Amino acid sequence: MISVSPLDRSQEAAIRALVDGKAKPLGALGRIESLAVRLALIEGRPAPRCERALLLVFAGDHGLNEAGVSAYPSSVTAAMVETLLAGRASANAFAGAVGAEVRVVDAGVAADLAPHPALIDAKVRKGTRNAELVAALTEAEVELALRHGAALARKAVEEEGFHVLAVGEMGIGNSASAALVLHRLAPAPLDDCIGPGAGHDAEGMARKRQVLARAAARSPASEPREVLAQFGGLEIAMMAGAILGAGACRRPVLVDGFISTTAALAAIRLQPAVADYCIFAHRSAETGHATALTAAGAEPLLDLSMRLGEGTGALLVLPLVRAAAGLLTGVADLDDVLAGRL
Amino acid sequence: MISVSPLDRSQEAAIRALVDGKAKPLGALGRIESLAVRLALIEGRPAPRCERALLLVFAGDHGLNEAGVSAYPSSVTAAMVETLLAGRASANAFAGAVGAEVRVVDAGVAADLAPHPALIDAKVRKGTRNAELVAALTEAEVELALRHGAALARKAVEEEGFHVLAVGEMGIGNSASAALVLHRLAPAPLDDCIGPGAGHDAEGMARKRQVLARAAARSPASEPREVLAQFGGLEIAMMAGAILGAGACRRPVLVDGFISTTAALAAIRLQPAVADYCIFAHRSAETGHATALTAAGAEPLLDLSMRLGEGTGALLVLPLVRAAAGLLTGVADLDDVLAGRL
Repeated sequence: MISVSPLDRSQEAAIRALVDGKAKPLGALGRIESLAVRLALIEGRPAPRCERALLLVFAGDHGLNEAGVSAYPSSVTAAMVETLLAGRASANAFAGAVGAEVRVVDAGVAADLAPHPALIDAKVRKGTRNAELVAALTEAEVELALRHGAALARKAVEEEGFHVLAVGEMGIGNSASAALVLHRLAPAPLDDCIGPGAGHDAEGMARKRQVLARAAARSPASEPREVLAQFGGLEIAMMAGAILGAGACRRPVLVDGFISTTAALAAIRLQPAVADYCIFAHRSAETGHATALTAAGAEPLLDLSMRLGEGTGALLVLPLVRAAAGLLTGVADLDDVLAGRL
Repeated sequence: MISVSPLDRSQEAAIRALVDGKAKPLGALGRIESLAVRLALIEGRPAPRCERALLLVFAGDHGLNEAGVSAYPSSVTAAMVETLLAGRASANAFAGAVGAEVRVVDAGVAADLAPHPALIDAKVRKGTRNAELVAALTEAEVELALRHGAALARKAVEEEGFHVLAVGEMGIGNSASAALVLHRLAPAPLDDCIGPGAGHDAEGMARKRQVLARAAARSPASEPREVLAQFGGLEIAMMAGAILGAGACRRPVLVDGFISTTAALAAIRLQPAVADYCIFAHRSAETGHATALTAAGAEPLLDLSMRLGEGTGALLVLPLVRAAAGLLTGVADLDDVLAGRL
């Protein structure tokens, strides 16, 4: 399995002292200062690099969607992948605003997608099986998804020179799959993990709850790989792999909202050390996200009532990450300012 | 006086419909959607432009500092201005991270500053008078500061083509001056307006409270120009002018923390319509900021426990503003996505 090393905390006091010595009142940059310290520890050097950023949007479909857990049909996943590839989705607009590259990873879209320079074909199968009735994936499929994800992260960092990774997803029905995964990995009551996703009326919500309760009753799985196999999400499993891969390469990974935090939780349950490499971006308005954040021990940086996915929230913290790095690399020491030694 | 037109709200429903029609679940981008609507209303067109951004850092000194309201001597203002001009302050690092230009406006630094391409000489006088004993400024000086500020904003927008302005400040002692201004303009109890600023121990805080209580007792001023004259802040008055100038040019202005929000409040008291052009960036950790935000009717976008000033908080919302604009200008309509018409 992908192995992630814990941060070398022996450098923490020295890096904190560098931050404290900058030309500003002590602690005046609040959470940006903690972020700066963490970035330096992640990279193992006091001048972290954050210029080149890549958003990986993991896409997949869900057999569970046959049971009506989403207000949208599975075909919308492929349509939104096409929109992302055409540069016309929200994630593209946000990536343009913050200066990041976007690639879509076909982890398991239930359609044949035409090749595209920004599309990475890592399809394990066309959608998961219907988790209401059977295991969504085999454990071999989960393992393949994890390995694909880790390899993608490693290639982006080691071969292409990206400094920061961000993860997001697109997959109709994936808030249902993520609710089941979270329910077992947190663990937390299933109802605390279920929200409206892309939108549901009261009837839709009631149906989603019933379907998920039946799926949960089908298997007592609690071990991460087993949970991913039972309740699926190829995009969730592959994202978990990418998060592990980022940690293995000692690079920060910006984690988006509910689905992504659930994937990060799976990664953390597989390799607890990866938590230190995860920068949790925002508090999503999706109901289960609070549960996921608590389980992951995360305090996200933003709270903008967003609940879109695609990595939109992750992208918005990229400038904060760069500002934190800039504090370490660009700001003068207070002693030098006061002594006129600029 | 600088005149600011209210937003033309007749377009609001049409712009909201454009946002609602984008390829995303209804309302899924939360506060970014509201921001998009406001940007379009500010500029009066459905495709707002936010690429070119300028941060104006207004600098000034305070006679009040003779009374020991800050832990730092006034000479630090000039030293930090030099740091900003050298590109080595936190605001420069953050501006680099988000893609904004930085200029320093000498509104009233108590030192002669060498010319620099990024320094705008708008000095009204070398520091204010000591507001503990006398009025900090004459009403003519306040008027000059307001006009200078408005002219700077207008030049940046109309002659140089900046799409977004951000305002911040540097001025030892200015959290004391702002506390007095806020106390009268909110209005709010003086104690709710006083915080540690750049840092104070208990003794320093007690002294600051005493000095400000004596200054407040000296004048019953409550009219905005009169309040600015009595309690000063050339950088505060000039920033208020720039905020009015941005509104007059129909451009958004990103308002930083405690001092900047107080300046925005002065602008709002002078021209209530300018409130619609102000994007309040973050909730500062400085004590009085909550009071200032409430008085300005503002709900800031970020809360990162920052309290530095220099415009650092304002800069961090620039990517959010650009993302909001990108939602309107770059994202496909859901109908087109579902019909395969990309």
